[in-house]
Amino acid sequence: MKNIKLLNKIDKIGTDVFNTSKYALSDKTENPCGIMVRSAVMHEMEFGSDLLAIARAGAGVNNIPIERCSEKGIVVFNTPGANANGVKELAIASLLLSSRKIVDGINWANNLKGQSDVEKLVEKGKSKFTGPELKGKTLGVIGLGAIGGMVANVAYSLGMEVMGCDPYITVNAAWSLSRAVVKAENYDEIYCNCDYITLHVPSVPSAIGLINKDSITKMKDGVRIVNLSRGDIVNTADILEALASGKVAAYVTDFPCEELLGVEGVIAIPHLGASTLESEENCAFMAAQQMVDYLENGNIRNSVNYPEIILPRVTMNRVVVLHENIPNMLAQVSTVLSSFNINIESLLSHAKGTNAVSLYETNDEVGSSVVEKILAIPGVRRVMVI
Amino acid sequence: MKNIKLLNKIDKIGTDVFNTSKYALSDKTENPCGIMVRSAVMHEMEFGSDLLAIARAGAGVNNIPIERCSEKGIVVFNTPGANANGVKELAIASLLLSSRKIVDGINWANNLKGQSDVEKLVEKGKSKFTGPELKGKTLGVIGLGAIGGMVANVAYSLGMEVMGCDPYITVNAAWSLSRAVVKAENYDEIYCNCDYITLHVPSVPSAIGLINKDSITKMKDGVRIVNLSRGDIVNTADILEALASGKVAAYVTDFPCEELLGVEGVIAIPHLGASTLESEENCAFMAAQQMVDYLENGNIRNSVNYPEIILPRVTMNRVVVLHENIPNMLAQVSTVLSSFNINIESLLSHAKGTNAVSLYETNDEVGSSVVEKILAIPGVRRVMVI
Repeated sequence: MKNIKLLNKIDKIGTDVFNTSKYALSDKTENPCGIMVRSAVMHEMEFGSDLLAIARAGAGVNNIPIERCSEKGIVVFNTPGANANGVKELAIASLLLSSRKIVDGINWANNLKGQSDVEKLVEKGKSKFTGPELKGKTLGVIGLGAIGGMVANVAYSLGMEVMGCDPYITVNAAWSLSRAVVKAENYDEIYCNCDYITLHVPSVPSAIGLINKDSITKMKDGVRIVNLSRGDIVNTADILEALASGKVAAYVTDFPCEELLGVEGVIAIPHLGASTLESEENCAFMAAQQMVDYLENGNIRNSVNYPEIILPRVTMNRVVVLHENIPNMLAQVSTVLSSFNINIESLLSHAKGTNAVSLYETNDEVGSSVVEKILAIPGVRRVMVI
Repeated sequence: MKNIKLLNKIDKIGTDVFNTSKYALSDKTENPCGIMVRSAVMHEMEFGSDLLAIARAGAGVNNIPIERCSEKGIVVFNTPGANANGVKELAIASLLLSSRKIVDGINWANNLKGQSDVEKLVEKGKSKFTGPELKGKTLGVIGLGAIGGMVANVAYSLGMEVMGCDPYITVNAAWSLSRAVVKAENYDEIYCNCDYITLHVPSVPSAIGLINKDSITKMKDGVRIVNLSRGDIVNTADILEALASGKVAAYVTDFPCEELLGVEGVIAIPHLGASTLESEENCAFMAAQQMVDYLENGNIRNSVNYPEIILPRVTMNRVVVLHENIPNMLAQVSTVLSSFNINIESLLSHAKGTNAVSLYETNDEVGSSVVEKILAIPGVRRVMVI
């Protein structure tokens, strides 16, 4: 029986992935081989000797001590893209809310409570909530990953002209884009041409302060900006200045901070991008599947510290070796195996930064004395026989 | 010079339709041949003898005394469909707002103003605004005119299953629908199968109270309903009861009334469906074009009291006769024309209810004595020579 510790409440659709004849799930276990976590902070946690993997149901992993995990040969998983549709739908809502003063209108109407002639008052006062339609306007999508690509496609189906820019776009992402999405060669092309700009950039240092005084100056007067990616992509002081001058007509952000609240033109959503039932389910399911596939097959998908590695099983015996990404590791492990007269049927090795994983398939069973020999090789962090 | 009276401010894109060498536009004119109006109430107005047409920049015409206009041979135009895209976009926003508590979330975040740890408070409190995604859910569209059809197509592109029902759907409307929209044979099929229902029914008596205790009982538990069509399509007492019991999870209405305000689950928008710059421009442009085409060619498009009638011009002389829809009118008018030795090159006549229009094209000029004779025929209301 393998022990899995649930550090947070994980959606049933996720916990159901674990076969109860093989796994015991609990929030109490002292020395688990796997930990499922959402937002619990793990930086001060001691890790037991059995711990092989941590799966975060969600995208951000700043609650997990990644480096310590890497050194101990603990694979850390997250679930990128599991909340993409939830964020996409909030992005479409944000575009619409940035145009028409729907939220202000709803709040104004609610304040008419208690008056006898609500219908008449509504007709008299509604004109101050008028705004433009999306149809026929140009949307710039900065970042065309899972979310940006979907936003671009839906915006086109809403009758918008769509320009996209992503210097790091993958073939798969490009493939799934509507042909009607125009390729912008650089961000300036987006800034100059778009009535609406939505940000879906990855979490890289160069993205911090991307929207600032300089980039805003290049934009059209009255531009509307949607930021559901990260708060620090947009320079707060600069966007406040641009809103005050009217250069920016509206700024929708999923990252409220004190300075932005209550400011005319700001629509501050309390980080609801992934706050959908489906996002939670997708994250829990994906995290659990990745955990099980690693514990049972050594396959790694969506790890933040170890490389992606997937090898179909061809024999009954597999040895998973997590090691430093340094020379001579494969030769030394192979030598140990052959010293026990064990032949390698299949071998796959991948590296990511300073960390590497090698999967060995053998016809013969691999005993504990073999494992001890491999673990003794300098640079080897972890050996799992499955 | 023809006088056009502007009873309300009409968007420039509309007034520009009138050729200034032929038309004088003013808000003062005493005896105009045409009136352009938006919401001004005309029920008590005296109509001058020159008045031939009233064009309402918008859809509703309850500010205009239609029956009195019909009797006097005054053609009343409106602009159906001119605001369709504006309403469609609000419908998409409404579906998203009905699912996720975005408005509540924004208001809650705004109330954190003044606190030093806004970001932390947001992460702690945001879970109460979680809601489902649209993707994968079933949307029922009741009424597949200009608006309903567009909503159906966009909802499909958002990943929803879409069912539509419209017993009176036109060929053009059916043609423009995505093939993926499933045809429901009756409203009950929509009620039984849909997670979301959006109402886009025309203003007919049978639509009043369509959503009531009986129809709600047939719906799925937790159904979400969007009503941007007319307030009285939904029975207020019944929807309040269904919201209180949880049968209906959310009700978005563009028609706030006292009883609906401040009720949990109600999102009351202050009649913003057509409140876009583009809707106003489209309405003004369409109303002006229809007015000019009638005054210059006798063609009628989108009249609420007289029939649609469009005849290409083949001669320099056209006689427009507005008359009661009774027998023997065409024979009598033709007899008058032939008594003046005027031959009819082309004739088109259409009726709508008790009102009819006939367009006569002649090679010979038609003088005032001819007009007098036609006007003297019992049942003839108006004669215009152009």
